[in-house]
Amino acid sequence: MKESFFQVVSVAEFTKLLATFPKAPVQERELSAAFGMSLAETITSRDDLPQAHRSSVDGYAVRAADTFGASESNPAYLDLAFAVEIQNPSDISLEPGHCAKITTGGCLPPEADAVVMVEQTQELGSDTIEIRKSLSPWDNVMLRGEDVQAGENVLAPGTRLDGARIGLLAALGYSRVLVHRHVTLGIISTGDEVVGIDEPVRPGLVRDVNSHTLSALAVAAGAKALRLGLVEDNLEALTAALKRGLEDCDVVIISGGSSVGTRDHTLEAMQSIPGSRILAHGIAMSPGKPTILAAAADKAVLGLPGQVASAQVVMQVLVMPFLAHLGGHERPFAIGPTASVPAKLNRNVASRQGRTDFIRVSLEQDAQNQLWATPVLGKSGLLKTLLQAHGLMEIPENQEGMTAGSQVMIRPLI
Amino acid sequence: MKESFFQVVSVAEFTKLLATFPKAPVQERELSAAFGMSLAETITSRDDLPQAHRSSVDGYAVRAADTFGASESNPAYLDLAFAVEIQNPSDISLEPGHCAKITTGGCLPPEADAVVMVEQTQELGSDTIEIRKSLSPWDNVMLRGEDVQAGENVLAPGTRLDGARIGLLAALGYSRVLVHRHVTLGIISTGDEVVGIDEPVRPGLVRDVNSHTLSALAVAAGAKALRLGLVEDNLEALTAALKRGLEDCDVVIISGGSSVGTRDHTLEAMQSIPGSRILAHGIAMSPGKPTILAAAADKAVLGLPGQVASAQVVMQVLVMPFLAHLGGHERPFAIGPTASVPAKLNRNVASRQGRTDFIRVSLEQDAQNQLWATPVLGKSGLLKTLLQAHGLMEIPENQEGMTAGSQVMIRPLI
Repeated sequence: MKESFFQVVSVAEFTKLLATFPKAPVQERELSAAFGMSLAETITSRDDLPQAHRSSVDGYAVRAADTFGASESNPAYLDLAFAVEIQNPSDISLEPGHCAKITTGGCLPPEADAVVMVEQTQELGSDTIEIRKSLSPWDNVMLRGEDVQAGENVLAPGTRLDGARIGLLAALGYSRVLVHRHVTLGIISTGDEVVGIDEPVRPGLVRDVNSHTLSALAVAAGAKALRLGLVEDNLEALTAALKRGLEDCDVVIISGGSSVGTRDHTLEAMQSIPGSRILAHGIAMSPGKPTILAAAADKAVLGLPGQVASAQVVMQVLVMPFLAHLGGHERPFAIGPTASVPAKLNRNVASRQGRTDFIRVSLEQDAQNQLWATPVLGKSGLLKTLLQAHGLMEIPENQEGMTAGSQVMIRPLI
Repeated sequence: MKESFFQVVSVAEFTKLLATFPKAPVQERELSAAFGMSLAETITSRDDLPQAHRSSVDGYAVRAADTFGASESNPAYLDLAFAVEIQNPSDISLEPGHCAKITTGGCLPPEADAVVMVEQTQELGSDTIEIRKSLSPWDNVMLRGEDVQAGENVLAPGTRLDGARIGLLAALGYSRVLVHRHVTLGIISTGDEVVGIDEPVRPGLVRDVNSHTLSALAVAAGAKALRLGLVEDNLEALTAALKRGLEDCDVVIISGGSSVGTRDHTLEAMQSIPGSRILAHGIAMSPGKPTILAAAADKAVLGLPGQVASAQVVMQVLVMPFLAHLGGHERPFAIGPTASVPAKLNRNVASRQGRTDFIRVSLEQDAQNQLWATPVLGKSGLLKTLLQAHGLMEIPENQEGMTAGSQVMIRPLI
């Protein structure tokens, strides 16, 4: 057993340590099975998108100059030359004074440079169309290459494939893409007082809440969760479970009970893996201080606090972004503009300097669309505080609390 | 074929129509497989939670009265009587002037009514503990039943099972729960100009973007997606595909091309299902106007616009909440405080009265944690507008646009 030492790090330092672990291997996947995953290649367009000038409305393709000055009171009159079949673009040029019927998505015939919406026209019979709108060139037209030009790099490695990006890949003909494969998180539960959720309890015993919550949140982070069972709280059993977990998983969490003995065994089990290193023993955050991070070869082992609310906060604030990092996401620890919600704090909240506080808050929206954040009071060990909260407010370590009326960013609880 | 008619409804009316479809059947599931699903039963607690007074810190259980007036400069001194084993609560009462060592989660011995944190104490040897803090009764104690009381109804049918609620169910010993089963959305692609994403394209042809985007978003909404293939654009083929889809799926979307012919065939295929009714033919919204809703027995059939950006907006704003409704969610069409992000609009946006507009916006955060929404300009048919946007801003039908500086709510794009 190696020497134990106590190394409390800041949230920022802990995040930097997490970012050093290598991303998951790359695999080729069908596009339809790649939603939410992170690209592992640069996507280059082979074609212009659209491939030709296309109408963005139903109406009539025209030469814009033929409509100049047209209005409700002074319409222009054009001859209907032909109708554009959507899948078979016309190669007949549009003559001056003529128009061609066209539907949304149809390709403009040669010499046409605008489309007038059907609502701004009238069919007058004898193939005469009344145009009640003056158009500028390229009105209601998606230009060839306006979305993407052939040869353009459109998506970079690390891009998370959301709905719009899956659509772009489909449009470009990428039916298979290289992505980082799913990350598997193994969860070991331990603790003298922890019993399975099917077990009866009596005072002194608690059911194994954390492995269920943590595996649900792992799935929400795009990973796979493997519950490795409730392991007896002694060094041999924990070490054996950890070794097995490291064979099958990319990351292993030991979700401990809260006794000091359990915390010691967690640390010792990590240290007993050959070549392992303890990277952090404690984080300067509340809740979540008794979190441990170790590296076993190039895999991470995390010891999470046994307290349910603490475990969930550490999971959401640190482990879920870490899983996204392993899954290949480009900036997993940055909080994008839609991943947190701005709100005004409605009372003063105290905090200790030198520690990052994550305060559970409920949110209420007033008639002016202003969100107000109210700290959820109650002992940190209670489940109730999580159930009543909508999100987490972060108070950075260099701040001594927040004053009422402050504009704050709230991360929704998942 | 039944008579065709054109019935444009408002977004609110369309939502009401969607809400009339019955929820998915109920099934029993393992708790670990129920994350994100909606409860179909009332959950009642069988026990108090916690089952006994428990410590929320590491330290010493005391009689609070023994610490009254204690401080850094004037500590109290107590005799260490015993240590509480976390899984085996002590039945020995704590005598006045004594304390008991306890860890987080440990049960208080009889007569103890507070816990002093270990950081506010000092072991002096000879089993004397120095207490440097005056405690009030029940300081650092989670009271028996403080989270949940035996017999209390803790979760109602329709509750979405997030991380905290999965945790609560585990704590209460619910290893299996009744939930509404997953909803299956079938997606038929059609359109003369639409080809598979593996196919080469030439001007006039486009790849089948929508079935990939829509199935990804269905999965994000907690449903299962079944792509029913690219079906020839004629009434017989479409009707046959729709009939098959209605056998295997809870909802079927026909994602059409944008030609008028395709739109007609979609409507006719819906009408050719025996007993079907067209509920809405057009929604007063932009984009998304050419959306069709029909009921075939108790299943919904939706015709979505062929235009990629329009289809994605209709999917996110209407179909994803509809899938949540079918999946048993209690208030699927209400937008909770964390499902949209308040921002200030940084320019005027025009809108037409009598129509709900969904404007794509990008978001930027300033140094004061204020989010600013900028409308993404560009023709609605372009993919680019979706790629550049972070979310959708809704302009209600009774408003003629929004002025710069308005406080608006933005729904993040998924």
